[in-house]
Amino acid sequence: MGEASHDSKLDAMGPAGGNKVYIGTFVHSRTREALELLHDTGVFVDGRGTIVAVEPDCHAARAREVICPRLGWDGADVEVIAVRQGQFFFPGFIDTHVHASQYPNVGIFGKSTLLDWLNTYTFPLESSLSNLERARRVYTACVRRTLAHGTTTSAYYATVDVAATNLLADICLALGQRAFVGRVCMDHADMCPEYYRDESPEASLAATRQCIDHVRAVDPDYALVSPIITPRFAPSCTSEAMHALGALHRETGLPIQTHVSENLSEVALVKSLFPDSASYAAVYDDHGLLTPRTVLAHAVHLTDDEADLVAARGAKISHCPASNSALTSGAARVRWMWERSIDIGLGTDMSGGHSPSILEAARLATLVSRHVAMGLPEGSEKERAKLTTDEALFLATRGGARVLGLEERVGAFEVGMQFDAQLVGLADVLEGEEDGREGEEGGWGAGALAGDAGNVDVFGWETWEEKIAKWLFNGDDRNTKKVWVKGRLVHERR
Amino acid sequence: MGEASHDSKLDAMGPAGGNKVYIGTFVHSRTREALELLHDTGVFVDGRGTIVAVEPDCHAARAREVICPRLGWDGADVEVIAVRQGQFFFPGFIDTHVHASQYPNVGIFGKSTLLDWLNTYTFPLESSLSNLERARRVYTACVRRTLAHGTTTSAYYATVDVAATNLLADICLALGQRAFVGRVCMDHADMCPEYYRDESPEASLAATRQCIDHVRAVDPDYALVSPIITPRFAPSCTSEAMHALGALHRETGLPIQTHVSENLSEVALVKSLFPDSASYAAVYDDHGLLTPRTVLAHAVHLTDDEADLVAARGAKISHCPASNSALTSGAARVRWMWERSIDIGLGTDMSGGHSPSILEAARLATLVSRHVAMGLPEGSEKERAKLTTDEALFLATRGGARVLGLEERVGAFEVGMQFDAQLVGLADVLEGEEDGREGEEGGWGAGALAGDAGNVDVFGWETWEEKIAKWLFNGDDRNTKKVWVKGRLVHERR
Repeated sequence: MGEASHDSKLDAMGPAGGNKVYIGTFVHSRTREALELLHDTGVFVDGRGTIVAVEPDCHAARAREVICPRLGWDGADVEVIAVRQGQFFFPGFIDTHVHASQYPNVGIFGKSTLLDWLNTYTFPLESSLSNLERARRVYTACVRRTLAHGTTTSAYYATVDVAATNLLADICLALGQRAFVGRVCMDHADMCPEYYRDESPEASLAATRQCIDHVRAVDPDYALVSPIITPRFAPSCTSEAMHALGALHRETGLPIQTHVSENLSEVALVKSLFPDSASYAAVYDDHGLLTPRTVLAHAVHLTDDEADLVAARGAKISHCPASNSALTSGAARVRWMWERSIDIGLGTDMSGGHSPSILEAARLATLVSRHVAMGLPEGSEKERAKLTTDEALFLATRGGARVLGLEERVGAFEVGMQFDAQLVGLADVLEGEEDGREGEEGGWGAGALAGDAGNVDVFGWETWEEKIAKWLFNGDDRNTKKVWVKGRLVHERR
Repeated sequence: MGEASHDSKLDAMGPAGGNKVYIGTFVHSRTREALELLHDTGVFVDGRGTIVAVEPDCHAARAREVICPRLGWDGADVEVIAVRQGQFFFPGFIDTHVHASQYPNVGIFGKSTLLDWLNTYTFPLESSLSNLERARRVYTACVRRTLAHGTTTSAYYATVDVAATNLLADICLALGQRAFVGRVCMDHADMCPEYYRDESPEASLAATRQCIDHVRAVDPDYALVSPIITPRFAPSCTSEAMHALGALHRETGLPIQTHVSENLSEVALVKSLFPDSASYAAVYDDHGLLTPRTVLAHAVHLTDDEADLVAARGAKISHCPASNSALTSGAARVRWMWERSIDIGLGTDMSGGHSPSILEAARLATLVSRHVAMGLPEGSEKERAKLTTDEALFLATRGGARVLGLEERVGAFEVGMQFDAQLVGLADVLEGEEDGREGEEGGWGAGALAGDAGNVDVFGWETWEEKIAKWLFNGDDRNTKKVWVKGRLVHERR
């Protein structure tokens, strides 16, 4: 693919290269509640991008002379990547819900809410991407932009169009982003615009199969890119189409993504369209679409019974705080769902959400959880509703991995997992201002003026926990210095 | 001052230079509801930084040959600053509430709420700034950082310490930021920590006078920096101190800044401390501190009567959405206050708020207004509660100017106003990727990888209104290319 050719370092289709050792500080979620800091640690990654060892008290000599022989590696032949003091490795972010096709509309939503937003802003743009040149520009920008923000895995909605959806899969593969790519199924003639819908349930299924076939042809093992069955949401689909997609899931085992209980008008609409189902989530259950491989976006207005059903089926939730605030959908109750044993990850939900950044989604999840708390009476539930920094960063990584069924493969630095990671650097506010301007990282003067160091100012007296909180709240893509997927360097700031 | 010497372009204490003409697109708030776009316009700024003409259909030749002679300027001697297509001038942002002394703590707040946050995080840091070297680092970083985000005017809280407060005033003057600098008065022995408070009401007043004297000595006309009377908030002040500060306001005419009705526990505390006052706002009124020159931060929990009192006194409100969400304070009702004729601006409220950016404050004000709407029953009030892009940007500029009594001087591009402005540039996603990489502004490839173009991707089909919405939602300091205060260039990205 031509997309990758702009930079030899981004030759993601090429081999990941030989064995490597990354040495420095690694930060990841040990549990949902607590990050773990691994200082002076070596993470040994083989040529296929798999982590084969995680060693404490590691430096280059020990790595080459002691650990490599133990792994059966030639220590002289191993590339050692040691990072500067203060930088740290963090798992790549996982975006569990993002409409790549809506990327050009980020920030553009006026005062709309879900149903008018779809008709006013969204369907016209999505429809226009049947123009493949336009689709190429949009999807390339979206994939590059999200990689630059450290997103190593995305669950994408494309459009109804088969060729454009396949192009998105090709672009993810070329640029090296792990992705689920879904062709959007929407065949309900009364609910979808005439200019933008599948012609029939049969057409919806056939087009979905075409996209699955394409991905199977370009990435046979779904090693990087996987198809995902994508009924847009219950109101846009006929019962026939949803039954057919449920059968397709049983046939292929492929994951499913859709939306649930985002907005009260939408919930009422679903009730009127599917009067025989007990709830919005039950509509999917009644069509064989509520499974452990199902990702449900939003879940703002789940009832108790609905949450119990989601939990019983093992379906997952993608929490999209930016979108839920922007479209006045509501404030999703993360803690409440966690306490019902529901797995949750984060979604940017562009362009209902404005930001390409999962770091911003984590930041907004923290703030929105406090709006949930504001609505509760004084007491332990109110206090519990608030998410911590560690919990928000869990949602952004391991939480998302669980939602997408990747918990064995990505989201942390553990033996057997693949190396999907980002290198994070923060700017030091140095003592000497003149000195500060000389620093590669910036110091203050140069940092702000040259524009590379970002907005996180570290004064030197912060604990690691405080530095990470500063990154969560003021970090951006400038702090993400390098990004790897399966051990391949797929983004680097220069 | 040494702070400015790092860059000759930042010689803010020097003369602003000769007459200048800025030519391009200017965007500002015509009304609270609507931005105005002035294309192909020339803004003529004299050597003192005052706008003397705003001319449509302006280009360099016409500026020099036609307009300059009319102004009595030598057209050959005028510097013409024309900007590239797609860039635009916007008024500098106005931060109506920011604790410069808390800057190192941005993002660090845990699960705390106001009163425990003060004791756990805030008082220890503020107290430590009596070390002037530490204060210099913190204040220099804060002023530079906020200038880089386009903030041309800040209403600062410093600390209790006189020398450190005076240093902040010096730094603002040296770096060229328009500022109100307040020494924090807090003398209530039962409410303030022993290690960080004024010894008595008399000491509080005397220290405040020392800071006023200092600013009068370094900027006699308060042309750039002004003192501001700063009782921290009612719980931290004795009645005697507040009466003395009220008298000081009547004597000097200086503005006042404090906090009101931020958090429910705080409101209850004020009620218990001042049982004879009818409300929190009434406490200030009863001490002569509720005036047209008073800036009240937060106002999340104002009662109807309190809002009526604030309106009747002409006092102003600083809305601080980031802080109010982070500290679980509540969601302030901007529309509700506007409908009571109360003037409102935006505050970053660092470090209750995490971000140095008023653009982010405007973005969060938009989102928080939707959380206000979520809490209202269906109907016109719910719909009205949502702020538009234009309204959020009004709050960030003209709204803030009114709050600080600067509405005749800054906040728009009008004859007689001073040129406090920022030049905004967005990144084009160019058709040809190779071409894109060559572009100075970035295009996609170079933009993302070089890190200078920021996160706003413009595809070329957007209206101006949509481009401005994109800037509001994904813009950051990378889009603020240059910043001027009183016609002086005080920040430039390179």
